[in-house]
Amino acid sequence: MAKVLTFREENYSAWYNELVVKADLAENSAVRGCMVIKPYGYAIWEKMQRVLDDMFKETGHQNAYFPLLIPKSFLSREADHVEGFAKECAVVTHYRLKNADDGRGVVVDPEAKLEEELIIRPTSETIIWNTYKNWIQSYRDLPVLCNQWANVMRWEMRTRLFLRTAEFLWQEGHTAHATKEEAEYETKQMIDIYAKFAEEWMAMPVIQGVKSESERFAGALDTYSIEALMQDGKALQSGTSHFLGQNFAKAFDVKFTNKEGKEDYVWATSWGVSTRLMGALIMAHSDDHGLVLPPKLAPIQVVIVPIFRNNEQLSAISEKINPILDELKTKGISVKFDDSDTKKPGWKFAEYELKGIPIRLAMGGRDLENGTIEVARRDTLTKETVPFDGLVDYIENLLEEIQSAIFRNAKKYRDDHITEVDDYEEFKELLETKGGFLSAHWDGTVETEQKIKEETKATIRCIPLDNKQEEGKCILTGKPSKQRVLFAKAY
Amino acid sequence: MAKVLTFREENYSAWYNELVVKADLAENSAVRGCMVIKPYGYAIWEKMQRVLDDMFKETGHQNAYFPLLIPKSFLSREADHVEGFAKECAVVTHYRLKNADDGRGVVVDPEAKLEEELIIRPTSETIIWNTYKNWIQSYRDLPVLCNQWANVMRWEMRTRLFLRTAEFLWQEGHTAHATKEEAEYETKQMIDIYAKFAEEWMAMPVIQGVKSESERFAGALDTYSIEALMQDGKALQSGTSHFLGQNFAKAFDVKFTNKEGKEDYVWATSWGVSTRLMGALIMAHSDDHGLVLPPKLAPIQVVIVPIFRNNEQLSAISEKINPILDELKTKGISVKFDDSDTKKPGWKFAEYELKGIPIRLAMGGRDLENGTIEVARRDTLTKETVPFDGLVDYIENLLEEIQSAIFRNAKKYRDDHITEVDDYEEFKELLETKGGFLSAHWDGTVETEQKIKEETKATIRCIPLDNKQEEGKCILTGKPSKQRVLFAKAY
Ligand SMILES: [Zn+2]
Ligand SMILES: [Zn+2]
Repeated sequence: MAKVLTFREENYSAWYNELVVKADLAENSAVRGCMVIKPYGYAIWEKMQRVLDDMFKETGHQNAYFPLLIPKSFLSREADHVEGFAKECAVVTHYRLKNADDGRGVVVDPEAKLEEELIIRPTSETIIWNTYKNWIQSYRDLPVLCNQWANVMRWEMRTRLFLRTAEFLWQEGHTAHATKEEAEYETKQMIDIYAKFAEEWMAMPVIQGVKSESERFAGALDTYSIEALMQDGKALQSGTSHFLGQNFAKAFDVKFTNKEGKEDYVWATSWGVSTRLMGALIMAHSDDHGLVLPPKLAPIQVVIVPIFRNNEQLSAISEKINPILDELKTKGISVKFDDSDTKKPGWKFAEYELKGIPIRLAMGGRDLENGTIEVARRDTLTKETVPFDGLVDYIENLLEEIQSAIFRNAKKYRDDHITEVDDYEEFKELLETKGGFLSAHWDGTVETEQKIKEETKATIRCIPLDNKQEEGKCILTGKPSKQRVLFAKAY
Repeated sequence: MAKVLTFREENYSAWYNELVVKADLAENSAVRGCMVIKPYGYAIWEKMQRVLDDMFKETGHQNAYFPLLIPKSFLSREADHVEGFAKECAVVTHYRLKNADDGRGVVVDPEAKLEEELIIRPTSETIIWNTYKNWIQSYRDLPVLCNQWANVMRWEMRTRLFLRTAEFLWQEGHTAHATKEEAEYETKQMIDIYAKFAEEWMAMPVIQGVKSESERFAGALDTYSIEALMQDGKALQSGTSHFLGQNFAKAFDVKFTNKEGKEDYVWATSWGVSTRLMGALIMAHSDDHGLVLPPKLAPIQVVIVPIFRNNEQLSAISEKINPILDELKTKGISVKFDDSDTKKPGWKFAEYELKGIPIRLAMGGRDLENGTIEVARRDTLTKETVPFDGLVDYIENLLEEIQSAIFRNAKKYRDDHITEVDDYEEFKELLETKGGFLSAHWDGTVETEQKIKEETKATIRCIPLDNKQEEGKCILTGKPSKQRVLFAKAY
C-alpha cells in the first residue's frame, strides 16, 4: 500500500495531524483555533453522545440549556474560578455593526457598546449557579441533576485538532445536593461512568484517580479524572468530575432549608467530557495505515466491496449480498455496500482502511463460484476467505472479537508502560525513552510537583483510587511519602 | 380548579409568558434576551430534534459542526446578506481579561485586542461556504448535504421566550449542488419535511408557500416557509428553506468542474427550524389550564396517580399498576407512576394538567373493588371510568385519538380563519376582529406590500404552493392581480 501518512515512529505529532485531516474527521477553519468537525468525524462524536446521554439519563440526569454568554462580573464571584478561567476567553463588547463610512464593508458601531462585557462561556458553573438560586429553596427541590451539551470557548494559544481547540463541544453536568455525602457520591459515580464508557465503548483503558491540588479544577475541592495512555507514551486526561463543595453556592448565595428546618448552602458537583475524546480515540488505536475504530463507535461497521468486470457480474454479486445487507441491518449492524463504478477496488480498500472501518468484505467472481467471501480485519490487517454460509453470525462474532482485541492491545500497552521508579535519574531517563506512567513517591508538596514539572515536563496525572499505601521516599526530595502517584508527560 | 394563568381572552401575551414559566419550560436569564431552557422544556425540544434528525438522515443528510465565530469581513462578501445580518450581532473584540488595577474584579485587557473582530454566528452560510470551497472541486464531490445543530445569536431588542430570543438553538442545513434543478428540488423537499413534521408530530397544520421578495432571507433567490396560525389569530413562521442560487458560491468563489469538464459555480440551499417551534407548539394547542401537548412529543405521555389513605392501600394499587407500567414501557409509551406522599392528589392533578401530560390515570380504593380506573384526557379535560382489563390497548388507542383530535381542532380553527377579502376596509376590520389569514389580491409590488404593512401591521405570509390562479384587483391599489396571497399579522 502506498504510504499516505507520516509513520508514527518518524513523527507522531505529524502522523496525528495528517490522520485527522485525511480520514475526514476535522480540519482547521478560517477562525484561529476553531475547527470544523467534518461529517465522518461528527458521526463518531454523535455515537459517543448517544451512549453517554443514555448513561446520564439512566442515572437520573436531565438535559437543559443555559446561555452561551456570561456577564464578566460573574467570573469574579468565585475567587479560584476567576484565576482559572477569566484569563483567556472571548469577550463580547459590542452588539452591532454598521456600514463603514468609506462604504467598504462593515465596522463595529461604537455606540453599541455593552454596559458590561459578556464572556463566551469557558465552562458554565457561574451562570448555572446563578440560575439554581431561583430553583432551590427547600430540600424538596434537591437534588438538581442537570446536564448540558454545548459549545465552549477557551482562547488557547497553541491549538491542535480535537486535543486543544479554542472552541470545542462538550457536555457539562452540574448537580446540586442537600448533603456533602450525596455530592461526593455523585462526583465518584460520574467518573465511574466515564471510565466505563472509555473502556467498554472506546476500548480505551483508563486509570481513575484524584488530582493533586495544583491540577484541580478552578473552584473545586477535589477533581477526579480518567487518564489514558497514548501510543507515544504520553497521558491524556479524558474526563473529569469535580466535587465543588459549597464554593459556588456561597459565591451565588444558593441556600436551602433542610429537613430540620435549618438553612444551609447547597453542595455542588460538575463533570464533563469533550470532543477531546475524539483525539483520545484516534491516538489510542490507530496505526500507520490510518484510523482504527472500535466497532461499537464506528459509524460504518462493515463495508462490502464487490469486485466485478461487468454489470452481469455485479448483478450476480449483488443478488448474493442483498439478503446479507438486510440481515445485518436487522441486527443493528451498520453496513455499506460500495458498488460504485467510478472508483477501483484498490482505491476503496485504501480509503476504508484509512477511515478505520472494522470489517471489510470483498467478493469477486471466484468467490461466487466457490461460495466464499474475503474478510479483512482492520485492526490486525489480516485477511481470510470464509464460507458464505453463516456469514452474518461470523461477522457478528468478529465485531465483538475486534472490540475486545483492540481493548486488550491497548491495555497490554498501557500496563507495560506503568513503571515503578525510585531513582530520579532513572525517572528522567524513562520519561525520555520508554515514556508512559511512572509510579513514584512524592512528598505531597506543590513545590516538589512544580520542580519536577519544570525539570522533566512530567506532571502528576493522578493519585489512583484505592491506591496501595506504602512507606517510601520522595523521588525528588527524599522526604517520607505514604504512597506512589502517577507521573507522565501529558497532552 | 384554582386559576393559575391569566386567561387567554384577557391577555394572550401574558397567558403565554406565564405558561412558559409555570409549566417549567424556560425562563429568562441574567443575560438580556438569553433564555434558560429548563429540563422539561428541553425534553420536548430533544424529542423534536430526534424526529427531525431522523428525517434529515433518511433523505441523505449528515451532521457536521462549523465554528461559532465568523470573521467580520465574511459578512460583507454577500451584499444582501450583510444588510440582513450584520446589523444586530454580538461582536467579539478581545480575547483576554486581566485583574483590575484596583484589585476589584477583572477588566478587559486592552492589549488582547483582535486584529479582526469576530461575530457570533447569526446564521452560518458565510463560514460554511468558505469551508466548502476546499471540499468541492469536481461534480464527483457533489452534492454536499450537511446539517448542523447549533446555537446562534441575533441581538434582538424586544425578546420573548422561545419566540424571539437573542440566543436560540436551531438546525441549519447547508447543501451544495451541481445543478439549479437539484438545488431547487432540495429546497422544496426540505420545506415539505418541515410541513410533515409540523402536521404529523406537532399536530399543527401549516401552509407551505413562497415568500414575497421583501420577506426573503438575505441572500436568497427564493424563500419557502411553513406558516402556522396561533390561537390569537396571528401567524407564526415555523420553518424556512432557501434557494440561494449561486450567490454564496460566487461570494466565496466555490467552483466545480462539471461532467463536461467545464467550470461552473455551485448551487446552494439552506434551511432551518429553531426553538421557536417550541413557542408554536405551546401556542397552537394550550388552554387556560396550561400546556396541551400532542402525545407524540410529550416527554411523559401517561401519568398514573394512586389515591390512597395508607400504605396498605398504596401497595394494593401498586400491585395492580406495576404490570401496566411494564406493558406500556414495552410498547414505547412513556409513563410516570407518581406515588409520592409529599403531595396531595389534587396538587398532582393540577400540576400534570399545567404540564400538558396527555393522559392522567387515577386509581383509588373503589376502583380496586370495581376493577376500574379513571382516565382523564388533557386535551378535552374529560374524565371517564373504564374497566381495568384491556387498559393498555385502551391507552394506546387513546393516545392516537388525542394526537388526531388536537390536529383536527387546530386545523378547524385554522381553516375557519382563512378569509377571502376583496375590500380594503373589510380587510382592516377583519384583521382587528377575527384575525387569521386574509386571502387577498395584491399587485405584486414592494411598495404596496410596504404600505399595507404600515397601515395594518399585516404582512404577506406567503404565496401558497399550487395557488389558484384567478384574475382580480389588488386590495390596496386596484391594479390587476393574477392570484390571491395570504396576509396576516405575525409573530
Ligand atoms: Zn514502549
Ligand atoms: Zn375566531
